Amino acid sequence: MSDKNGGISLVNLAKIKLVKAEFLFQQVRQKKSLLCIGLDTDPQKIPSHLHKEADPVFAFNKAIVEATHDLAIAYKPNIAFYEAQGPKGWESLARTLEVIPDEVMVIADAKRGDIGNTSRMYAQTFFEQYDFDAITVAPYMGSDSVGPFLEFEEKWVFLLGLTSNPGAQDFQFFPETQPLYQRVLTTAQTWPKATGTELGFVVGATKAEKLQEIRALAPEAWLLVPGVGAQGGSVEAVCQHGMNDRGGLLINSSRGIIYAGKEADFAEQARKAARKLQSQMQPFVEKL
Amino acid sequence: MSDKNGGISLVNLAKIKLVKAEFLFQQVRQKKSLLCIGLDTDPQKIPSHLHKEADPVFAFNKAIVEATHDLAIAYKPNIAFYEAQGPKGWESLARTLEVIPDEVMVIADAKRGDIGNTSRMYAQTFFEQYDFDAITVAPYMGSDSVGPFLEFEEKWVFLLGLTSNPGAQDFQFFPETQPLYQRVLTTAQTWPKATGTELGFVVGATKAEKLQEIRALAPEAWLLVPGVGAQGGSVEAVCQHGMNDRGGLLINSSRGIIYAGKEADFAEQARKAARKLQSQMQPFVEKL
Repeated sequence: MSDKNGGISLVNLAKIKLVKAEFLFQQVRQKKSLLCIGLDTDPQKIPSHLHKEADPVFAFNKAIVEATHDLAIAYKPNIAFYEAQGPKGWESLARTLEVIPDEVMVIADAKRGDIGNTSRMYAQTFFEQYDFDAITVAPYMGSDSVGPFLEFEEKWVFLLGLTSNPGAQDFQFFPETQPLYQRVLTTAQTWPKATGTELGFVVGATKAEKLQEIRALAPEAWLLVPGVGAQGGSVEAVCQHGMNDRGGLLINSSRGIIYAGKEADFAEQARKAARKLQSQMQPFVEKL
Repeated sequence: MSDKNGGISLVNLAKIKLVKAEFLFQQVRQKKSLLCIGLDTDPQKIPSHLHKEADPVFAFNKAIVEATHDLAIAYKPNIAFYEAQGPKGWESLARTLEVIPDEVMVIADAKRGDIGNTSRMYAQTFFEQYDFDAITVAPYMGSDSVGPFLEFEEKWVFLLGLTSNPGAQDFQFFPETQPLYQRVLTTAQTWPKATGTELGFVVGATKAEKLQEIRALAPEAWLLVPGVGAQGGSVEAVCQHGMNDRGGLLINSSRGIIYAGKEADFAEQARKAARKLQSQMQPFVEKL
């Protein structure tokens, strides 16, 4: 999601975040979509014919992106999958970022978070070296572990709020009187450089019934919502409970889209799966 | 920290963890040390003469390891610093691991944690591909995000407990009646595959007054204690409040050791700084 397509060359730097949010909203309306596609690309799961390519992971991603970019407002590479390939995995990742059209947001699903000087290093890696638009960050270590990511004026953070996995029960729901996930949502919004548009939250689709409450706690924030498809969450429930007047949702599907087909027509099958999810979002987006 | 030096070829696999803990205890007694050296190697901070080397980061690490391995029971590369160098950073990391003697534990300071299939990917990367002995993990996502790391029988996890940074105040201390860090400590020890020796915790040295309480909550666990040196924690206070009958502490210093000198004699200066910390630990270890 580059500035140049947003036509903001004359706009004050301080307004970039607002412009980026507006630009994302334009994408939502234009594509009638809230779809984020997770690029959890595992060499063992891609069609076998791709293994004759010099960089099979990149070849797979390129085909997926070319087949789906008019339906998606964001792509979310899961960094674990690239890191697992060693140095060449990072090269596949860099090549993938080059073929994602500028107007589509790219989120590093990295769930980083460490003391300040280390978080700064992570932020530089993902925001400067790889030019991601956004990153997912873990909140456990608090404000100075998230701050270095927020300091990048033109970049976004999606902080883990309420996650989609069973283990969310262990810590995020305690104490009942003010569960940790609520405390994360309300506290993080008071941190320096946190605004409704640059600080978003990860909220699992499997917790759709909580989305209404979370939306009330963070009315302007964009919510990154994993867990539809393979993890069982419903697009309709997510839209119904989680949208705001700008859309405000990035609804992610990974395996359900990218592995929809296993043969030569995998990209076409991925497009069908993406189209199906987008079409479930369309009636909600058309009301905006 | 390889099995072969522990002489455990005839020992049942199920006993490896115990043996590994015993082996670590042997290291503690032999070296009279609880020292972990953090390899937070930043190319911009290493002596300039190393930049003529083919791999300056590796050359720096190799010299540090050669100068200090008889004083340290563990090394802890901070993954952010290697990742920031792109693909070549991962190569520097792999080369560094090769020159660390087998008897010294190697901890990936990565603070990973994600849904199960992604955590499994991270675990495979650090435990199988790079053969680390241990990894630091973030607890926010709960049991199924940590489980895949614990499933590796011969490997250890250091889960974030109470961290050394100011942001620890934001979430880890709430609610006052049962603070999150206590809940993490007590809950995590009930998870499958968690034993006192394979599941340790990160507890900042800047919170030394809390170590006694934490030791009571996790009597057998090894605690990885960052924050002495650059962050201001005291070795004596940490030993006094945190040790158990096996030592039970890995007291980390990074910048205070590896950047003790900036000239050609940097490795010698690092050794002096390491020796100084080890000598502060020695009287405590000698009482074991």
